Amino acid sequence: MKPVLPKIQSPEDLRSLPKEVLPQLAVELREFILETLSAKPGHLGAGLGVVELTIALHYFFQTPEDLLIWDVGHQCYPHKILTGRKDHFDSLRQLDGIAGFPTRTESKFDVFGVGHSSTSISAIIGMAIADQLQGNLNQHIAVIGDASIVSGMALEGLNHLGSTDLDVLIILNDNSIGIDPSVGALKEHFFQLENGGNHSVFEDFGLHYKGVVDGHDFDQLFKAFEELEQIRRPKILHIKTTKGKGYTQAEADQVKWHAPGKFNKATGEISKSVQNKISFQQIFGETIADLMRENPNILAITPAMLTGSNLVKAKIEFPKRVIDVGIAEQHAVTFAAGLATQGMVPYMAIYSTFLQRAYDQVIHDVALQNLPVVFCIDRAGLVGTDGATHHGYFDIAFLRSIPNMIVSAPMDDKDFQNLLYTAQFTESPFSIRFPKGNSDADVSTELSSRFNFEKIEIGRAIELKKGNEVAILTFGTIGQRIQNVLGEISFKEKYGHYKFLFCKPFDKSMLDQIFSQYQTIITFEDGILNGGFGDAVLEYAQEKDFKGKIIRKGYPDEFIEHASIEELEQEIGLDEEGILELLLGLI
Amino acid sequence: MKPVLPKIQSPEDLRSLPKEVLPQLAVELREFILETLSAKPGHLGAGLGVVELTIALHYFFQTPEDLLIWDVGHQCYPHKILTGRKDHFDSLRQLDGIAGFPTRTESKFDVFGVGHSSTSISAIIGMAIADQLQGNLNQHIAVIGDASIVSGMALEGLNHLGSTDLDVLIILNDNSIGIDPSVGALKEHFFQLENGGNHSVFEDFGLHYKGVVDGHDFDQLFKAFEELEQIRRPKILHIKTTKGKGYTQAEADQVKWHAPGKFNKATGEISKSVQNKISFQQIFGETIADLMRENPNILAITPAMLTGSNLVKAKIEFPKRVIDVGIAEQHAVTFAAGLATQGMVPYMAIYSTFLQRAYDQVIHDVALQNLPVVFCIDRAGLVGTDGATHHGYFDIAFLRSIPNMIVSAPMDDKDFQNLLYTAQFTESPFSIRFPKGNSDADVSTELSSRFNFEKIEIGRAIELKKGNEVAILTFGTIGQRIQNVLGEISFKEKYGHYKFLFCKPFDKSMLDQIFSQYQTIITFEDGILNGGFGDAVLEYAQEKDFKGKIIRKGYPDEFIEHASIEELEQEIGLDEEGILELLLGLI
Repeated sequence: MKPVLPKIQSPEDLRSLPKEVLPQLAVELREFILETLSAKPGHLGAGLGVVELTIALHYFFQTPEDLLIWDVGHQCYPHKILTGRKDHFDSLRQLDGIAGFPTRTESKFDVFGVGHSSTSISAIIGMAIADQLQGNLNQHIAVIGDASIVSGMALEGLNHLGSTDLDVLIILNDNSIGIDPSVGALKEHFFQLENGGNHSVFEDFGLHYKGVVDGHDFDQLFKAFEELEQIRRPKILHIKTTKGKGYTQAEADQVKWHAPGKFNKATGEISKSVQNKISFQQIFGETIADLMRENPNILAITPAMLTGSNLVKAKIEFPKRVIDVGIAEQHAVTFAAGLATQGMVPYMAIYSTFLQRAYDQVIHDVALQNLPVVFCIDRAGLVGTDGATHHGYFDIAFLRSIPNMIVSAPMDDKDFQNLLYTAQFTESPFSIRFPKGNSDADVSTELSSRFNFEKIEIGRAIELKKGNEVAILTFGTIGQRIQNVLGEISFKEKYGHYKFLFCKPFDKSMLDQIFSQYQTIITFEDGILNGGFGDAVLEYAQEKDFKGKIIRKGYPDEFIEHASIEELEQEIGLDEEGILELLLGLI
Repeated sequence: MKPVLPKIQSPEDLRSLPKEVLPQLAVELREFILETLSAKPGHLGAGLGVVELTIALHYFFQTPEDLLIWDVGHQCYPHKILTGRKDHFDSLRQLDGIAGFPTRTESKFDVFGVGHSSTSISAIIGMAIADQLQGNLNQHIAVIGDASIVSGMALEGLNHLGSTDLDVLIILNDNSIGIDPSVGALKEHFFQLENGGNHSVFEDFGLHYKGVVDGHDFDQLFKAFEELEQIRRPKILHIKTTKGKGYTQAEADQVKWHAPGKFNKATGEISKSVQNKISFQQIFGETIADLMRENPNILAITPAMLTGSNLVKAKIEFPKRVIDVGIAEQHAVTFAAGLATQGMVPYMAIYSTFLQRAYDQVIHDVALQNLPVVFCIDRAGLVGTDGATHHGYFDIAFLRSIPNMIVSAPMDDKDFQNLLYTAQFTESPFSIRFPKGNSDADVSTELSSRFNFEKIEIGRAIELKKGNEVAILTFGTIGQRIQNVLGEISFKEKYGHYKFLFCKPFDKSMLDQIFSQYQTIITFEDGILNGGFGDAVLEYAQEKDFKGKIIRKGYPDEFIEHASIEELEQEIGLDEEGILELLLGLI
């Protein structure tokens, strides 16, 4: 048969096809995705799982007039390919290329930008009410997975939706997995529904429920769409799909193939990039397990990031003390606060961008009660190809303004281990931010173990190098880049380098010393400048009437798109070359 | 009969009583609460509604070893009275007195501090898991209302709880009302359960369900406790109560009697304090209705604060365009973002402290997509007697660090109206913070209407008064206090006063002018200093190499307890006397 996919530049082209060729199109679409992603890393499994659903939706509904939102967006590749972005698809997640998530500025078919989970129901209700008020008759559809629909804000959305007369269709794409296998009571309930359970939780939420339908079967999907078209009130279609569908390896190990990196499509072999350095994620996983062996009160909590946070090993060793609560950041933090009241030492492993979801709980349940919860803030700083929704941009600024909070960041692997070790002894909330990717430690390095961890003095900064003209103050791993750059400067005696492991509490005596010895100070941080580490220096400088020059470097007051971390750092002048130029210009 | 209450200093005293006298105790407890609250304003209705429940819980369970959490805490007065705080109860919500909410530092019976809703389930799970790991055999109980249990984080907690083997008892205190009548689909579901519905949503969440029990009937309560004691897994007891129970007036108008202020217990007449000034809340309610009359695209959204945000009048006039989504801040913000994508102009009415719940949604769904949602941030700054959980402390700092966000605050009633008017024309997210309480406008003032609103130039600061020594820069209503203070200074020509309606974007040309004319600058804001308005001035001063003195005044880096706003301002030196002293000291 002649290939169909090359002819499709828009859903209109798709809708001109006879239904019979859709299965063939599904095969071609999977092939195209596999071909591209084997060379250009991205999210594989989720997209493969919704190939039939995506085709069916664009075939049946009149997109973009009918509004279609993909929750989270991991699964949007078939959608992007069918909506005019096929020819640029190999620029996926690259500098100036197609974003990995639906993005309003990229296409009129991306009606709502996503990245964080569980926003789709709220957004589609807003659109539906707007259209109702304006008298528009278009349809409103949101597709959301079983791991995302149990998150608080999605349930808030359902509670609102079910009390309205809106003709909105929610599609529950149930594949029993988010990035890791789904957890929680509702997961069991969905399983019962698949096995003949006849009352659904969604009816309690006021929705018409239709399920369970095979999401890989076009006939079943179209029949369900037709049936539900007649129900002119809030409704939910529960479909069952397989993540990684159509690619044996991806079906067999869904966690590994969520975002496998480059791979050989024919053999299913995932390319191992040669790893010379130990990543911060590896250090975290090893160290937390080590700490848990020694201190029985330590627990590790993750909101649905067991693999991403590298807690799998600790979970096997301490199944009761490593707890995945699902996509439930708000609950996770207050749950940790509850643990802390009873003398436990909870370590929350959470990505910086997702901690934003629990900002109030950090303030109201942890900091206000001064409870010793340890926040291990992963993916702090730029995360690269996931783009604007995922950068760990704000945590320094928002944590620094919270009373009682200890705000720390390691410069290297040893600092990181020692901060993790030290945190268990404090009586206040303790945050430790660390970036995605490699530390400077070689893979051959023996990580420290509990036998030689060192307790760090909280709030103390360290003079790494004396200088006589410019004091460089760093917070976090950007300090390593500074060290590399200083290694290349011939008149390096002019520069002093001061490592601040703590942005709060702040080492004022070290600053007093710096103020007395330098006329120029420059601060570096991997975070937004407004409210960040540099501001802490400014505040104290003003208090002490320091009359020299202070320059702050960090992230600008704008959202940063996707590209490799290195490219993004170059863009904002925080790569080694940019830093070198900057430092030379100060003399 | 002899009074029982005077003999009770602790739950142990309570447990020594025969069951038969408990109804009498309930009468006395209500009497005591009414007597106290008629003179010392506080939350009345919620406490009256749980008198029997509170007695029954402390009678049946071994508090404080058995851990009991009250969600939100509005209803904690009977609990406080029975747990050793009866004799100090008339210091309620006053400086150095008993807090209005359960507070860990106040009593070992307050096992978890509350204030914001829906945290109790998460916290009690943490405590139960800690006790399980430590081998403790105590009980774990959380009491939560029907308006709070439908909020996202409570549902996240249920989803976790239902997947565990924990012996935890959730008590759903269903009175069909939060502060305003409950909304949402689950409210209907609860109503069906009360009327013979035989399958509950909680069973889908994996909980054993027992209901519906009359929460004012001791026999029914004890029977239910005994029955549930045998169920050693997660369980929920659904009780029905009446808010304001036992006081006719409070039962009849539950919204008014939520927190009525002082009243005459005998007549039920609520004291009207003589109101000389128009409150910001009144201005908001009038103005939003006025704007809605003119612009059909404007909607007002409230997360369960219809009365508090003074939207009742607009709701009556525009029932479809004023939307109460219940306690669902996360949903509310993303719902507003969805509305904005379709050309609507959503005005989110939300208290500063509750906006913290939607911090991620403000960043990820609104600001990142640069959608024109208007955030009307009520109760910004100190709120007084509600205390630490409720102060609007952080919004300037956290909003200022978000790209695309316009951050504004009026100094007076006219500014406020004009900012509200102006916001509808922008293409970016627009936040307007305003305090609890009165503006400087007399009640006799005719508020502006749509016929004479003025469009404000975004980002422009205004020189209210030239000076020759000290430039005073104010953001928000604290500018009024400055004006009052300046009125009392004889050599007032030394002081210039600059009103910044916008903290972001920032009026740099006005600052250039100030830098060139003054050697001393002092900034004032009603918010935390770390990251706030003063920091914005510091940042630009550093950029422009300003060598003069800059002093920043605002809230300190610590949590502030309850007392009147005036007392708290005095405590932190931001009352008029403190400001006067400060300003005089600068010359």
